[in-house]
Amino acid sequence: MNTPDIPLPLKGVRVLDLGHVFQGPYATFLMAMAGADVIKIEAPHGDMSRRRGRDGDYPFRALNGCKRGIVLNLKSERGREVLIKLARKADVLVENFAPSVMPRLGLSADVLMKENPRLIYASASGFGRTGPYADKLALDLTIQAMSGLMSTTGELGGRPLKAGVPVADFMSGAHLYGAIVTALYERGVTGLGRAVEISMLESVFAPLLPAAGHAYASHTPPRRTGNRHVADSYVPFDTFEAADGWVAIVCATDEHWANFTGATGIAALQDASLRQLKARIARIDEITEAIAQWASTRTRDEITTLCQASHVPCAPLRDVLEVLDDPHLRARGFLTEHPTHAGPVALPNSPMRYEGSPLRTLTAPPALGEHTNAVLAELCGLNDAEIAALREAGALGHET
Amino acid sequence: MNTPDIPLPLKGVRVLDLGHVFQGPYATFLMAMAGADVIKIEAPHGDMSRRRGRDGDYPFRALNGCKRGIVLNLKSERGREVLIKLARKADVLVENFAPSVMPRLGLSADVLMKENPRLIYASASGFGRTGPYADKLALDLTIQAMSGLMSTTGELGGRPLKAGVPVADFMSGAHLYGAIVTALYERGVTGLGRAVEISMLESVFAPLLPAAGHAYASHTPPRRTGNRHVADSYVPFDTFEAADGWVAIVCATDEHWANFTGATGIAALQDASLRQLKARIARIDEITEAIAQWASTRTRDEITTLCQASHVPCAPLRDVLEVLDDPHLRARGFLTEHPTHAGPVALPNSPMRYEGSPLRTLTAPPALGEHTNAVLAELCGLNDAEIAALREAGALGHET
Repeated sequence: MNTPDIPLPLKGVRVLDLGHVFQGPYATFLMAMAGADVIKIEAPHGDMSRRRGRDGDYPFRALNGCKRGIVLNLKSERGREVLIKLARKADVLVENFAPSVMPRLGLSADVLMKENPRLIYASASGFGRTGPYADKLALDLTIQAMSGLMSTTGELGGRPLKAGVPVADFMSGAHLYGAIVTALYERGVTGLGRAVEISMLESVFAPLLPAAGHAYASHTPPRRTGNRHVADSYVPFDTFEAADGWVAIVCATDEHWANFTGATGIAALQDASLRQLKARIARIDEITEAIAQWASTRTRDEITTLCQASHVPCAPLRDVLEVLDDPHLRARGFLTEHPTHAGPVALPNSPMRYEGSPLRTLTAPPALGEHTNAVLAELCGLNDAEIAALREAGALGHET
Repeated sequence: MNTPDIPLPLKGVRVLDLGHVFQGPYATFLMAMAGADVIKIEAPHGDMSRRRGRDGDYPFRALNGCKRGIVLNLKSERGREVLIKLARKADVLVENFAPSVMPRLGLSADVLMKENPRLIYASASGFGRTGPYADKLALDLTIQAMSGLMSTTGELGGRPLKAGVPVADFMSGAHLYGAIVTALYERGVTGLGRAVEISMLESVFAPLLPAAGHAYASHTPPRRTGNRHVADSYVPFDTFEAADGWVAIVCATDEHWANFTGATGIAALQDASLRQLKARIARIDEITEAIAQWASTRTRDEITTLCQASHVPCAPLRDVLEVLDDPHLRARGFLTEHPTHAGPVALPNSPMRYEGSPLRTLTAPPALGEHTNAVLAELCGLNDAEIAALREAGALGHET
């Protein structure tokens, strides 16, 4: 449609990235992959995700490619002065410290935007910078608990469970990206930056809407429903155990149901009265049992191939290694393979695609402080002696 | 910091919203709440989320406020002509049909961007517009299955479970918003629009990173771990049953652990060797049991108050009605109360905040076709007789 190789849309945008695991770094990862020049600013001890527990440094590797890295000691006055100098030359500053941290350091949005009125100052936190919970600590698991997400996850009659992956961290990271880019758009119109703000708790609210609707309609908190719909608004809407794994099947419309019963030929489901959703809801247990029985004697692939060919939404339930090996995600260039000391790993790109621009090639993350000298020379105009003096004064940590 | 009442950042941006449940409408909801003029374009039968099953129309009410609504029959040639006229006056068009739909109607990005080179044409789908799965049907549940998310969710030894709420729909909606606004920023620089694209499968990949890291490190798909960390990289990282509900507790650092053991005084945890994460990982079952026993004799509020006062990340596990009633979300103006025929309901705003601009006041969604005449007059310059003729020809459905 467009001629190839249009520059990526955020080319020329310079970002100071004070983010740490995972909310902030995901937002700046999305910026980097959209073409921005992201400068990751770490404390002397480095982002804690550089050295994680038993999941290794793979998340750090994944989220910090295509970024430069510098070390600044913001506990030192001269370190803070350097940050202010950098902010004068930046388009965006991103931080996801607790709300009190940057003001306490004298590095609030007020201060930095006075130095640079075009700066976008983006803050992300668990609960936001105002309101009664502003100072409470938050992590993905506590937000999953507090947001209502866990109350809806689990077996019927079972205890509440988390989503197995940190959806609150990444969902708020995606919103943080959105808020930043919105302010960049606005600056193109007004010439002025903005302080923007995201909270994790608010970022994960919207998926609760169907459950909240059901709660209002029934005047009671929704039950956990295993893999069924919160309100059984679709039948089937469930997973079924095949001979060699699991499949998810959804008939979101009566047409899907007609396709499904036609393709599978399950005798108990041919009853014409079941063509209406209302009748299916009334007989959901009987229908579930019939599909489960049918599925149990077929493979996962047989079922998904049959359903998909018949225009029924259906998918295999895949494990993490299968996903990392997915031919579709590789064909689209979303997953690419990268060498590590422990062998090749697949790493993701951004889910946002701009027709006419190839995806940015993912590079390795910076070593701790790798670009400190180069960035201070380029953006602050400092010479070797001045940088050495800053290092001597403890403003740049202890890297060489 | 700024003087109050700066206009919202997307003021003056006009959006043609062809989205339907929930991916597209969430992206355009975020645009509307950021100040955009969103025109929801529905087929004559209306967005299917206007009349849902047992969760009512609450999600529709929540996602379509602050939008105008028109009806266009895109199966009619004159309906398509109207869409092209509207696209000439729009900044953004958003659609989340299956990838083949708009090209088949002659309304592809190519066609509309030839009419309006400044148009941002945003497409969202399950798997994206290219690659081997492009034409497969997808819904939140099937994406949760296929993306690996379900494989990580559930009890140790139990079957895979979905997140109880449609995180794939909303997570991809948030990314869709990000891609659109990125293109708007770019247009401010280049003067040209873009076709942008999002897939649900790619949008939910990033939260998998810790699990993927663990899979690579252990050469095996991660076990489901109930509410514990996928790799037990933190101890405790779990939920515990209090006397009257559940709490989530995480010691993400050794300092959190010291705070926790100090505040709770649990005898079995005072062992100095447990101050190191490595030792805690080795004795995780013993530690879990000791905390569970302690928690079982205290209320949810006692535990969270004690932990939070001691700087330990801890939260109550709340049900949906508690979240809808949350004093913090109300104090921040994120949740506001709105009348419905069934009584007042709380509805969310956008999680993105712009310092200096109050949140937009959420209005009721448009009735089906409520603004058809007004919008066609305003944007296409049509008079009453011309609109009547279009209606006669079936281009505008059958609303009055």
